[in-house]
Amino acid sequence: MFEVAELGHKVSKSEYNKKVPELRTQLLTLQQEISSEDFSVIVLISGVDGGGKGEVINSLNEWLDPRFMRTNAYDSPSDEEQERPDFWRFWRTMPAKGTVGIYVGSWYSEPIAQQVLNKSSDIQFQNELTHIKQLEQELADDGTLIIKCWLHLAKDQQKKRLKKLASNPETAWQVTDRDKKHLKLYDTFVDVAENVLEATSSAQNPWLIVEGSDSRYSSLTVGQHIADKIKQHQIARKNYQNNSTYIPTENQLNVLDSLDLNLHLDKKSYIEQLNFYQGKLNKLAREAHLKKISSVLVFEGWDAGGKGGAIRRLTHALDARNYQVIPIAAPTDEESKQHYLWRFWRHIPRAGRITIYDRSWYGRTLVERVEGFATDEQWMRAYSEIRHFEESLTDHNIIVLKFWLHIDADEQLKRFKEREQISYKQHKITEEDYRNRAQWEGYSLAVNDMVARTSTRSASWTLVEANDKRYARIKVLKTYCDKLEEKLASL
Amino acid sequence: MFEVAELGHKVSKSEYNKKVPELRTQLLTLQQEISSEDFSVIVLISGVDGGGKGEVINSLNEWLDPRFMRTNAYDSPSDEEQERPDFWRFWRTMPAKGTVGIYVGSWYSEPIAQQVLNKSSDIQFQNELTHIKQLEQELADDGTLIIKCWLHLAKDQQKKRLKKLASNPETAWQVTDRDKKHLKLYDTFVDVAENVLEATSSAQNPWLIVEGSDSRYSSLTVGQHIADKIKQHQIARKNYQNNSTYIPTENQLNVLDSLDLNLHLDKKSYIEQLNFYQGKLNKLAREAHLKKISSVLVFEGWDAGGKGGAIRRLTHALDARNYQVIPIAAPTDEESKQHYLWRFWRHIPRAGRITIYDRSWYGRTLVERVEGFATDEQWMRAYSEIRHFEESLTDHNIIVLKFWLHIDADEQLKRFKEREQISYKQHKITEEDYRNRAQWEGYSLAVNDMVARTSTRSASWTLVEANDKRYARIKVLKTYCDKLEEKLASL
Repeated sequence: MFEVAELGHKVSKSEYNKKVPELRTQLLTLQQEISSEDFSVIVLISGVDGGGKGEVINSLNEWLDPRFMRTNAYDSPSDEEQERPDFWRFWRTMPAKGTVGIYVGSWYSEPIAQQVLNKSSDIQFQNELTHIKQLEQELADDGTLIIKCWLHLAKDQQKKRLKKLASNPETAWQVTDRDKKHLKLYDTFVDVAENVLEATSSAQNPWLIVEGSDSRYSSLTVGQHIADKIKQHQIARKNYQNNSTYIPTENQLNVLDSLDLNLHLDKKSYIEQLNFYQGKLNKLAREAHLKKISSVLVFEGWDAGGKGGAIRRLTHALDARNYQVIPIAAPTDEESKQHYLWRFWRHIPRAGRITIYDRSWYGRTLVERVEGFATDEQWMRAYSEIRHFEESLTDHNIIVLKFWLHIDADEQLKRFKEREQISYKQHKITEEDYRNRAQWEGYSLAVNDMVARTSTRSASWTLVEANDKRYARIKVLKTYCDKLEEKLASL
Repeated sequence: MFEVAELGHKVSKSEYNKKVPELRTQLLTLQQEISSEDFSVIVLISGVDGGGKGEVINSLNEWLDPRFMRTNAYDSPSDEEQERPDFWRFWRTMPAKGTVGIYVGSWYSEPIAQQVLNKSSDIQFQNELTHIKQLEQELADDGTLIIKCWLHLAKDQQKKRLKKLASNPETAWQVTDRDKKHLKLYDTFVDVAENVLEATSSAQNPWLIVEGSDSRYSSLTVGQHIADKIKQHQIARKNYQNNSTYIPTENQLNVLDSLDLNLHLDKKSYIEQLNFYQGKLNKLAREAHLKKISSVLVFEGWDAGGKGGAIRRLTHALDARNYQVIPIAAPTDEESKQHYLWRFWRHIPRAGRITIYDRSWYGRTLVERVEGFATDEQWMRAYSEIRHFEESLTDHNIIVLKFWLHIDADEQLKRFKEREQISYKQHKITEEDYRNRAQWEGYSLAVNDMVARTSTRSASWTLVEANDKRYARIKVLKTYCDKLEEKLASL
């Protein structure tokens, strides 16, 4: 695979000086153009030590317009990063639409290093590659252009380079013990890299292998490759045809119909159970906090289904320092320039804390689907995107609970009318709520699909019979208690 | 001072249940109103241990609409926070305009704790109080309503409470060794608190002292206080009259006129010095990175003054992993809902890294002043706000360098014409650039004021004679080298 990059490509200084201005013009013009287009560009610069990654990145930094570009470097993760799933540190620094993100080190660095040093099992490694492919696929589906460049250096050149650096007192510092160790591991490294590159080169996101011995050659090659890929991507985006259309299945059994909405609790047993479960939750949540178990709780449900009330009964038992309620509002402009999951990723709790989402990423499969804000392709794709996202949370030992608060249409109307009578609830009822009622069937189908496709073993839906608020609140409390108990017992 | 909070205020359960719905209505209505107004509300809940802070915060969390409210809790600082100035963790979580931020722990917690435990000298302590006052003043100047509540508990009640908690196995966990230690320190704590409260109660931002023995009383009192303060603030904002108007001084000596714009370098010595200083900078920057010295570099200057070129000559010598160039663009909507300094705070580098601002917070005193985007009051206030901001950086041992790249009007015109000839520079020249030229006098005056008022000993301006690009670039490089050398020698 790497033979093409051991041919001794070189660019003379005069040729370089002739080509750079023309390339810069291309790149700056393209940056200018895409600044108002709806995709972002991710450029990964990876490769062997001494392959000249630093030089290429410095060239790109010089050539590109810093207004639409940012370089992301990743040292060892900070504690804030370690407390979240592995990909969180990459999500938090994703380039916004219209901009270019240059990655020094990326999601490839750790998996490759671990495998070379024999610290990860083959299964772990394959698993990591799968996650990388999912991530890149999801970004590409969102329109992101991912340009992956691998800088290669043959073993003897590698040796020569280190020797030369070490012999000059001015540059000897550049040769670290890590470099010497890596040289010994060169063959293993190249083997692992070959595997990784093969496994993660898709038609959409292929790797470019670049010879790294001459930095003028590699900088020009990478720069030109970026310009070419951007041009291709612009054309592809223009010609893009959405071919996926949703064809509804007839006579589907609806999981919501099976719920017994007559379930209820009398006031006395409600008060008893409320006190009992709030007390229990308080204890369990304290223990979870100490043991650094985080929770992500999602509340979805019909308008007036009682989400707010259920959340308040829950948070009443929690320490306000340890939870955040994130009510989902319209995305800010920083948020709408990112993948739709980004605005949820940013609120993932630190270790031992709780984030409660009042509505969530499921909006994609509910309101956005029903109201046509997302294309069929987008919301159909969302199921697997969401499964991967939630999997990355549960893999990180985070509790994920999802509640659907279910009421019937009569109960909803009754509650709308009640709300209009209570002064501090009036703001909750708008014209839109009545409009949404008209779409009951469509929403019902969407909920059914959502539950069917996103109830996984580690992140299943809890359907809550919520015509009786008391019953619903206790069920929510009890479910969270049970989950915490189970998790704490498993430690 | 605390006598008023030892009178045994109580609210019966029935009175509480009667008052809460009315208070909630008030609070929710107010939140609704201010959600479209242009100020944020900060609520600090502080006080003695056992003063019922948790209960009050939980009540507020239940009463307020989570869409416009967020609770900020502060554990010990994360490593990302420790690597920035003390206030950075508070800046990063400031509530946006139209929303309420409830603070559990705040900028008061550490200074008080340190003083009680006798770990800070009186001078340090006074210094911290000064910084707190500055911060609150600046937020208030920006329209922020700061509501500060102190929950008090008399010593004997404190004892009684801990005893009661400890005697019940269900609640004994709540009594920590820290509590026992704090009880011993009660008198000292109250003394320190009294000092702090006196020193930081201004007419604009006074403290409310609340008796904390009965949580129904304290929750209602704090809740009602918040509602009242918001109402007052709305009226005050409506009646607000800006009385500060700028009166220019005649015949001011302009510091820019004293610059010798004939200074220049021939090509040969330029190349020599460029190589020399880039090599030197590379070494120094590496050492600074290892020693965790961060730098904040600010580039301001006339349009076409050569900021971009100077920055590129500088970054050429740096490792792309360790610096970020932040070109100042129009604020995003998340940014424009914050204090104008917020969007600069968010980019303050981690330890050992470099942030280069291509234009900066000085926009307030330059373009915003000259074009009238900021009121006279706002830009006149900005000088001291900026001094405090930069002081917080230099206090944290961060290098702050500010460059003004100075050219004359003829040189500028010449460069505009040149740019129009170079394809990849054409995008840099717009109508606006020519319009700005017409304001040369106004800008000149603004620059002079800016330099005069914000050149401090620890963060002085470097005025760069930039009619000759070569001379300017070398001066920038040399200045940064000198500063790094000086800083490293001082460690």
